[in-house]
Amino acid sequence: MAAPSRLLIRGGRVVNGDSSQVADVLVEDGVVRALGRDLLPPGDAPAGLRVLDAAGKLVLPGGIDTHTHMQFPFMGSRSVDDFYQGTKAALAGGTTMIIDFAIPHKGHSLIEAFETWRSWADPKVCCDYSLHVAVTWWSEQVKEEMKILTQDKGVNSFKMFMAYKDLYMLRDVELYKVFSWCKEIGAIAEVHAENGDLIAEGAKKMLALGITGPEGHELGRPEAVEAEATLRAITIAGAVNCPLCVVHVMSKSAARVIADARRDGKVVFGEPIAAGLGTDGTHYWNREWPHAAHHVMGPPLRPDPSTPDFLMNLLANGDLTITGSDHCTFNTCQKALGKDDFTKIPNGVNGVEDRMSVIWEKGVHSGKMDENWFVAVTSTNAAKIFNLYPRKGKIAVGSDADIVIWDPKATRTISAKTHHQAVNFNIFEGVVCHGVPLVTISRGKVAYEAGVFSVTAGDGKFVPRKPFAEYIYKRIKQQDQPWTESPEEASGS
Amino acid sequence: MAAPSRLLIRGGRVVNGDSSQVADVLVEDGVVRALGRDLLPPGDAPAGLRVLDAAGKLVLPGGIDTHTHMQFPFMGSRSVDDFYQGTKAALAGGTTMIIDFAIPHKGHSLIEAFETWRSWADPKVCCDYSLHVAVTWWSEQVKEEMKILTQDKGVNSFKMFMAYKDLYMLRDVELYKVFSWCKEIGAIAEVHAENGDLIAEGAKKMLALGITGPEGHELGRPEAVEAEATLRAITIAGAVNCPLCVVHVMSKSAARVIADARRDGKVVFGEPIAAGLGTDGTHYWNREWPHAAHHVMGPPLRPDPSTPDFLMNLLANGDLTITGSDHCTFNTCQKALGKDDFTKIPNGVNGVEDRMSVIWEKGVHSGKMDENWFVAVTSTNAAKIFNLYPRKGKIAVGSDADIVIWDPKATRTISAKTHHQAVNFNIFEGVVCHGVPLVTISRGKVAYEAGVFSVTAGDGKFVPRKPFAEYIYKRIKQQDQPWTESPEEASGS
Amino acid sequence: MAAPSRLLIRGGRVVNGDSSQVADVLVEDGVVRALGRDLLPPGDAPAGLRVLDAAGKLVLPGGIDTHTHMQFPFMGSRSVDDFYQGTKAALAGGTTMIIDFAIPHKGHSLIEAFETWRSWADPKVCCDYSLHVAVTWWSEQVKEEMKILTQDKGVNSFKMFMAYKDLYMLRDVELYKVFSWCKEIGAIAEVHAENGDLIAEGAKKMLALGITGPEGHELGRPEAVEAEATLRAITIAGAVNCPLCVVHVMSKSAARVIADARRDGKVVFGEPIAAGLGTDGTHYWNREWPHAAHHVMGPPLRPDPSTPDFLMNLLANGDLTITGSDHCTFNTCQKALGKDDFTKIPNGVNGVEDRMSVIWEKGVHSGKMDENWFVAVTSTNAAKIFNLYPRKGKIAVGSDADIVIWDPKATRTISAKTHHQAVNFNIFEGVVCHGVPLVTISRGKVAYEAGVFSVTAGDGKFVPRKPFAEYIYKRIKQQDQPWTESPEEASGS
Amino acid sequence: MAAPSRLLIRGGRVVNGDSSQVADVLVEDGVVRALGRDLLPPGDAPAGLRVLDAAGKLVLPGGIDTHTHMQFPFMGSRSVDDFYQGTKAALAGGTTMIIDFAIPHKGHSLIEAFETWRSWADPKVCCDYSLHVAVTWWSEQVKEEMKILTQDKGVNSFKMFMAYKDLYMLRDVELYKVFSWCKEIGAIAEVHAENGDLIAEGAKKMLALGITGPEGHELGRPEAVEAEATLRAITIAGAVNCPLCVVHVMSKSAARVIADARRDGKVVFGEPIAAGLGTDGTHYWNREWPHAAHHVMGPPLRPDPSTPDFLMNLLANGDLTITGSDHCTFNTCQKALGKDDFTKIPNGVNGVEDRMSVIWEKGVHSGKMDENWFVAVTSTNAAKIFNLYPRKGKIAVGSDADIVIWDPKATRTISAKTHHQAVNFNIFEGVVCHGVPLVTISRGKVAYEAGVFSVTAGDGKFVPRKPFAEYIYKRIKQQDQPWTESPEEASGS
Repeated sequence: MAAPSRLLIRGGRVVNGDSSQVADVLVEDGVVRALGRDLLPPGDAPAGLRVLDAAGKLVLPGGIDTHTHMQFPFMGSRSVDDFYQGTKAALAGGTTMIIDFAIPHKGHSLIEAFETWRSWADPKVCCDYSLHVAVTWWSEQVKEEMKILTQDKGVNSFKMFMAYKDLYMLRDVELYKVFSWCKEIGAIAEVHAENGDLIAEGAKKMLALGITGPEGHELGRPEAVEAEATLRAITIAGAVNCPLCVVHVMSKSAARVIADARRDGKVVFGEPIAAGLGTDGTHYWNREWPHAAHHVMGPPLRPDPSTPDFLMNLLANGDLTITGSDHCTFNTCQKALGKDDFTKIPNGVNGVEDRMSVIWEKGVHSGKMDENWFVAVTSTNAAKIFNLYPRKGKIAVGSDADIVIWDPKATRTISAKTHHQAVNFNIFEGVVCHGVPLVTISRGKVAYEAGVFSVTAGDGKFVPRKPFAEYIYKRIKQQDQPWTESPEEASGS
Repeated sequence: MAAPSRLLIRGGRVVNGDSSQVADVLVEDGVVRALGRDLLPPGDAPAGLRVLDAAGKLVLPGGIDTHTHMQFPFMGSRSVDDFYQGTKAALAGGTTMIIDFAIPHKGHSLIEAFETWRSWADPKVCCDYSLHVAVTWWSEQVKEEMKILTQDKGVNSFKMFMAYKDLYMLRDVELYKVFSWCKEIGAIAEVHAENGDLIAEGAKKMLALGITGPEGHELGRPEAVEAEATLRAITIAGAVNCPLCVVHVMSKSAARVIADARRDGKVVFGEPIAAGLGTDGTHYWNREWPHAAHHVMGPPLRPDPSTPDFLMNLLANGDLTITGSDHCTFNTCQKALGKDDFTKIPNGVNGVEDRMSVIWEKGVHSGKMDENWFVAVTSTNAAKIFNLYPRKGKIAVGSDADIVIWDPKATRTISAKTHHQAVNFNIFEGVVCHGVPLVTISRGKVAYEAGVFSVTAGDGKFVPRKPFAEYIYKRIKQQDQPWTESPEEASGS
Repeated sequence: MAAPSRLLIRGGRVVNGDSSQVADVLVEDGVVRALGRDLLPPGDAPAGLRVLDAAGKLVLPGGIDTHTHMQFPFMGSRSVDDFYQGTKAALAGGTTMIIDFAIPHKGHSLIEAFETWRSWADPKVCCDYSLHVAVTWWSEQVKEEMKILTQDKGVNSFKMFMAYKDLYMLRDVELYKVFSWCKEIGAIAEVHAENGDLIAEGAKKMLALGITGPEGHELGRPEAVEAEATLRAITIAGAVNCPLCVVHVMSKSAARVIADARRDGKVVFGEPIAAGLGTDGTHYWNREWPHAAHHVMGPPLRPDPSTPDFLMNLLANGDLTITGSDHCTFNTCQKALGKDDFTKIPNGVNGVEDRMSVIWEKGVHSGKMDENWFVAVTSTNAAKIFNLYPRKGKIAVGSDADIVIWDPKATRTISAKTHHQAVNFNIFEGVVCHGVPLVTISRGKVAYEAGVFSVTAGDGKFVPRKPFAEYIYKRIKQQDQPWTESPEEASGS
Repeated sequence: MAAPSRLLIRGGRVVNGDSSQVADVLVEDGVVRALGRDLLPPGDAPAGLRVLDAAGKLVLPGGIDTHTHMQFPFMGSRSVDDFYQGTKAALAGGTTMIIDFAIPHKGHSLIEAFETWRSWADPKVCCDYSLHVAVTWWSEQVKEEMKILTQDKGVNSFKMFMAYKDLYMLRDVELYKVFSWCKEIGAIAEVHAENGDLIAEGAKKMLALGITGPEGHELGRPEAVEAEATLRAITIAGAVNCPLCVVHVMSKSAARVIADARRDGKVVFGEPIAAGLGTDGTHYWNREWPHAAHHVMGPPLRPDPSTPDFLMNLLANGDLTITGSDHCTFNTCQKALGKDDFTKIPNGVNGVEDRMSVIWEKGVHSGKMDENWFVAVTSTNAAKIFNLYPRKGKIAVGSDADIVIWDPKATRTISAKTHHQAVNFNIFEGVVCHGVPLVTISRGKVAYEAGVFSVTAGDGKFVPRKPFAEYIYKRIKQQDQPWTESPEEASGS
C-alpha cells in the first residue's frame, strides 16, 4: 500500500529561524499546504491523511548540510558513505538536504565533473541535494563553463582551494579572476582557506624531523596557516567585492579574521562544521593510531581545547553563519594507507548524521543560542545564502515539506555502533546529546521514524539554485553604485 | 464620514525582517487579515475598502523607536515635543510606535511616575506607545513596585543611569541588585552607560579651565567615560546573568566593548540612535553657539568623524541590534540656559521623525544592509526584545496593522523648516535621504499620507508588554541550568 | 674577622637591561667602582680583596621585587615571613631589594602606618627595601600626609584598593582625587584592580549556593571582575593624566586591557607576579583542601591554563613592565581559618624567593625573552619607574653593588622542603628551574653563597625614592602642554 | 689646517636609549674616549682639542636611517639624491649612518649588485653606511651568494619584495626558502609587504575606470593589500622561526598585525618611516598634480588622517621598533613620467634629512615618548637589530663618535627651499619642528654645524655587520631547543 499522500503534524511547536508558534502543519504533495491552530477537527482523520502527533515536540525545517563529500575519490581511496548511505544517515540525523561538491581535476571540464557527480547522486540520494562546483584551474573554458553552470545547471556557488598544492590549489591571481567572474555571474565564492605552500613545506619538515604520526598533520599546518589564508581570501574577494564563504572554519584565529571582516562591512560568511564545534585536535596525540588517524582532516582540528566553545560562541552571535559537516568518511583500513606517513592518511571525518545533534547539545542545550537561531544556523541561513529560501529553510505555506519532529528533552549517545553512517568510527563517540530527531520528513514523506527508514534510492532530487541570491547580492549591487564620499569621509576605522 | 474600516495595500513588496515578497495586504479592524497575491479580483473595490496602490514600493512594518523623551521635564526645562506633536512627527517619519521613559526622582514611587507618564501620553498619542520605567534608587518599595509594574502594568524593561550623579545615578551595588531583580521578574535591564563621577569631575575641570562652550560638554566626558561604564554594566549584568541593553551607544570604543561581549557569549544588546548614526561631534566646535548647543546630548556625539560609519557597520552585522532616537528636543531659547555654562544646556536632540530615513540613507542606500535587515533593526528586533513580536515588528496575518509604504527611490531633504517635530532646529539639516515614507498606517488607519495627517490625539494606545520575552530569556534560562563542566573545559577564550 | 670590604667578580658576562658584556666588576664600599676587562692583573689578589670567579656565569643586577607583604597583619592573621626571614629568602632567590606596603586602616594616619612598617622592617631586613604607602581613605589630612611622605619620607608610590570593600576600598570619586593628587606631587598611582562590590556579592552568592571551598574564591570573582576594574582605573587615571601601575595582573583579559591602553598612548604599567606567571587556578579544584587553600590570593589565579603563557608573552614584548611576587605567606594552620568558608582563608602566596627562577625558566629558558630583557623586567624597569635608576637596576660604575652571579645552565627543583621562605607550602613545588643564583651580593657584601647566608638582621637599608621620576613624568609633563590640534586632527583611533 | 683630532663636548645632557646624564664627552680618533663630569679642568683647552659647548643641549647618538635608496635606478629614472648629496642631507638632519639597499634584478648576481652599490657609495658617502641586499629570485647561486655576503661582506639583512610583480616579487615558496636560509646563516629577513598580484590587478582596474591620477595609486592598493601581505610574511617567517622586519609600515591595519604578532611571541619588528609618521595620503587628492605625485610611494600613504598618530603611538610603546625614511627622491620632471598614468610615476619621497625632526616633533614634543625612547627608535634599536651595538647607537666609551648636539627648544620650519636634499619638493613643507640638530659629528669630526658642512666625499665608511645579532638570535636559538610541552599545555591564546 502506498504511503498516505497527506500528512498532518499536529500540536507541535513550529520553530522557524525568526520565531516559534504552536501550530499544526498540513503537508500535501510534498509541500506545506497549511499552517495554523486546529487544522483538523476532533475526530478521526480522513482517509489518506496520516496524523503525526507532535505535542510537546518541536517541528523544525529539515537541516541543510552545506558541506559533504559522498563517495569522493580522494587520496587514493574513496569515501565510504556513498550518496545512498550518506543521505540515509543525514535523514536519521534530521538533515533533509546536503550540498556536495563536484571537483574536477586541473585541466578537466567543470561541466563533466558536474555531470559525473549528478550521475553518481541522482540514482542514489534519499533526500534532496545540490552541488557546489570546484574551480581548480583557470582558462577561457572554465569561465564559459562557470557561466553555463550558473545559467543552465542550477549552480550558484563555486569552491576554490588555497590548499592541496598542485592538485587543486589556485594562486592569488587565479583567485582574483575567479572571484571577479563569480560576481559577474551572480555566484558566491567559497574557499578552503589554508596556505598550500606552507602545508607542503610543513609536511616535509615534520617528516624530516621523524614525525610521521597523525600529530604531524596538525603540527605541519597549525592554525596560523589557516588564519593567513582566510585573511588573504577576504582581501582578494574584497578587492573585487565578491561575496565570500569560508568553509570549514576550524580555528579561533581564522574565525576572528572573519568576524573582524564582518565588523568592517565585508560580505563574508563563515561555515564551521560539526567536527570543529564538537571535538578538538588533542585527539591527534591519542595513543591509539586509528583513533588519532580517524580525526585527520583538512584543515585539522586544533589542539587548543577552548576552540569548539569559541567557534560556537561566534556561531551563536552571528559572526559565523552556516554549518556543514565536511562529511568524508574513510574506514580504518583506508586510513591505514598513512600508517607510516601522515600525509598519506585520507583526510576526512564523519558528521552528516551528527551535525544537528552536536549543535543542539553544544549550542542550544548549553544556552548559547535558542531554538530559532539553531534553525537559522542549521538550515535557514544556508537556504538564504544559496538562494533556496523560502522553499527550503522554513516551514511556511508553499515551502517544501522537509520537516523534522525533534524531541528537545530526549537524549541519545552517539556511537559508531549505532549510527547509520557507513564508516566504522565516530569522532563523537560517547557524546550524550540532548535533542533527538524522532521523525524526518523529506519532500512530504516520512523517511525516518523511530529508527526505521522508509526510503528508496532516488527519492531525493537535485535542487537547482539560481544566481544573484538577494540575501547576498542586494548589498553588493548597492555598494557598487558610484561612491561620492571624499577620502576624508571615507577614512577611519 | 468615517474612514473606511478596511484597507488593501496592493502590489507592493512586503518586507519583513527575514525576507521579502510581492503581495497584497488586507487590513481590517486594525490588524492584518490576509497577505498574498491578488487578494482583490480586478474591478472596483467593494464599499468600505480603500485600496492603496503600492506597486513598485516597499511595504514595511512601521518603525519602533525604542528611545524617546516626549514632554520630558529635564534640566529646568521641558522638551518641546509633547506626546501629540512627537508622535505625529514619528508617523510622518514612518514610525508607528515609540517607547518612552517614565522617570521618577530618587525616593519617589515608580508606579506614580508610570501613571504620571500614562496620564500625559494617553490623551495625546497619535500612535501606539509603551513605557520603560527608570529605577533611580533602590529599596524594598522599589523592588515591590518593579514587580507590580511587570506583572500588572505591562512594563518589561527598566532603565538605570550610571550618569547624572545625585539625580538619577545608581552605584554598582545598586545596579547589582536591580539587575538581579530584573532577571527574577523577567525584565530586561537598560543602562545609560557613562561614569557619572567622571562626568561631574570633568565638567568641573572644563569650567575651571575656562571652557564654558558646548565643546566642553564633550571634552569633559570623552568616549573613554562611556566605554568604561559600558564594560562595567556588562560585567555586573554578567555576574547575575541578567539580559542587558546598552542604550544610546555613541562611540566606537563603547560599541566595541558590546561587540566583544557578544562574541564572548553575553546576552547583551546595543542601541545606537539616529544622531550617532547620522552625524558627529565636530559640531560642538561650530562657531555658531546655537548650532553647537543643539547637538548637546548625553552621551555626547563624538568628534571622531569615522564614528557614524563604524556604528552603522556594527548595526549592519548584528553587533548592535536595535535603534532609537533619544528624541528629547529643546528650542534655542531653552538651550540658551547654558549660554555661559555648557553644563546648563538642556541635553537632547531630535530624531523621532528622522531615524528611519537616516538609517535607510546611511545603512541601506550605502549598501551596508539590505531592506530586510533595515526592518530588523528599525522594528523587528525591538519587537522581539521587548516581547511585542509578532504583534509588532512584522507584517503577517494577525499582526497589528502598523505599516509604512516606503518609496526607496524618492529622496527628500531634511530640514527644520519642513519637519513635523516641534523643535526649531534639526541636527540633520540638509541631509538628502533616499527612502521616503509615503503612507503611514497606524492600527489599520491611514495616519499620514503625502504630507497630510489624519490623526486625533489619543488614537494611539498604550501597549503592555509581558515579562520573560522568549527572545532573550530562553537562553538565560538554559544557561542557568546546573553546569557540569570541569574548570579545564570551561576555560579558554 | 670582618668580611673583605672589596670584591672582584671576575670574568663573568655582565648583563644589563640593554646589553651584555664580558667584564670584571670591582666593588668597594658597597658600590661598583670599576667595570672592565682584566681589572686585576694575573697573580694573587691583594689583601682585603675577595675574588669571585664568574667565568661562564652571568653577573646580573639583583632583582627588585616590587610587591611584598612581610609580617602583614591581615584577615585575622599575620603573614609568616617577617622582614628577616622574607628578605633572607629574597637573597637566596637573587633578589636584593623588595618594596613592601605600609597599609593604614581607614581613618588612620598614613605617616603612622609608614613609621610602623619602618619600625618593623629596619631592624630586620637583610637586603634593601622601600615602602609603597596605601591610601585607604581620603581627607585633607591624607592629602597633607601624602605630600609629606613624598617630600620628606622617600615615598613616590601610593597604592589604592578597588577591592576589599569597607576595609580598604576607595570609590571612583576618591580614586579621581587621589590620582589627581599623586600627579600633583609627582608620585605614581598603583591599584589593586578588582571590583570590590562584585567580589562581595559574588562571595555571598557562592556561599548561598553552598560552595564554601577554595574554588568559590575564584568563581565568585572571575576575571571579568578584574578586567572591569582595570579599565576603570585606567580611565580615571587617564582623566587626570596620572601615571598608573596596575599591580598583580592575574588574567588574560586584564592584561589585554593594559596592553590596549598602552597602544592608545596611556602612561600605564602592568605588574604580573611570580604566581600568575608560573602557575594557574586549576589548583582551586584540587582535592586536597590545604593544597587548594594555599593558592588562595586576590585577585585569584585563573583556571584558564593558557594564562601564564599569555602573561609571559606580554611581559616579554613590553606590554607588561615589572614583576613582583605579592609574597604574603600563611601556614596551613592559618589558611585553616577558612576551612568552612573560603572568604575566611587568609589571602596570599609565596614568591619572593621563587620569582627570579620562575621568570627565567618560563621566560628565558623558553625563548620568550633574552637575558637582557630578563634583567629589565626583574630589576631595571622597576628601578626606572620607582626612581631608583641607575643606583639600582644596573651594574655600572657608581651603582649600588646589588649583584647576583647566576648560573644559566644549572637547575634546581623548587620545594617547600628546601626553600628559605618561612611558609610550609610552595605553590611552585616540583618545578624544575634552569637558572640558579649562585652568589647574591647585597650592598657590596656576599649575603648568600652556595646555600649559605652571611647576613645580619638590619644589614639592609630603607631606600628613599624621590618624586617625579623622569621615566614616567617626562612624558606626562610634555603631554600637559597646551594642545593646539583641532578636533578633526585629534580624532581617529 | 687639519681639523683638530680631538673634541670635547662639554656640559650637555647625554641621552642614551636607556637613560640620560649630564656629562662631558671626549672624542679622539673617531671614538668616544671618555664620558663623565668635568673631564676638562677650567681654563683654556689644550692645543688640538676643540671644545663644543653643549650646556642646555642634548647630546645624542647620531641617527641611523635604516631605509634609503640613494641614486637608485628605478622605474625608468634614477633618484636624485646620490650618496654624496643624500648623506650630506642626512648629516644636516642629525643622521650619521644610513643603510641603503643593493637590489639585483632577477637572475643577476647578488654579490655583483652589492659591489656595484659599494662602487657608487664608497667614493661619495659623507657618513657611515651599510647595505641590505635584496633577494629578488631564488637559486643555488643565490643561496651561495647570501652565505658569502653574510660571512665575508658584512651583510646580515636581506630584503624580499612581496610587491613589484615580475620585477622583484617573490612567491610564498620562495619566501619560505629565503627565510629558512636567512635563519641558517644568521641574517634577518626584511620584507616589503604588499600583495603584488593585487597591486597589479588594482592598477589595471583603476586605469580601466579612467582613474589615472595619483589618487589611483592608493585606491588600487589600499591598506588591506598591505595588511594581508604583512600577516602572510609573519606567518611564513613563523613557520621557520626566522626573525623578520617589516619595512615601511604605512597603515594602521598592517601595524596592528605586527603588534598582535608580537603579543603572540613572534620575533618580528616593524619599521615605520618619516613619511608615514609625519603626513598622510589625503595629499593624493590634492588639486595640484605635482603636489600629489610627489607623495607617491609604495606602499602608499593612507588617506585615513588618524594614521600618523596611530603609528607614532605604536612606535612609542614598542610595538614598532625602528625608523627609516625610505628616502628615494625624484624631481617634478621625473614624477611627470606618470602624468597620464599613475603607474608610471616614479615611487619615492624624501625623509633622510627630516626623519629625526619629524619624530621629535610628533613623538617627543607631543609627549608620546621621552628623549631616551627617541634615541632608541631613531638609533639604538637599529644598532641592536643590525648588530652594530654598542659601536653605534650609544654614546659610551669605545663607541664610534657619531654624535648630534640637539637643541630641544629651538624650532625650524621644513621647506624644500632650505633643505639640503637634492629634490625640489618636500612632503613636510611648512611643518614647524621643535628639536633642531645644531652640530653633527661623524666618526669624531664635526661634519655639520650651524648650517655649514665640513665634509668630503668618501669621509664615510662602509660598516660591515656580523650575522647572528644577539638581540634577535638569542631568543630564536632558545626557542629552537626541543620542546617538551604536551599539546594541552601548548594550547590556548
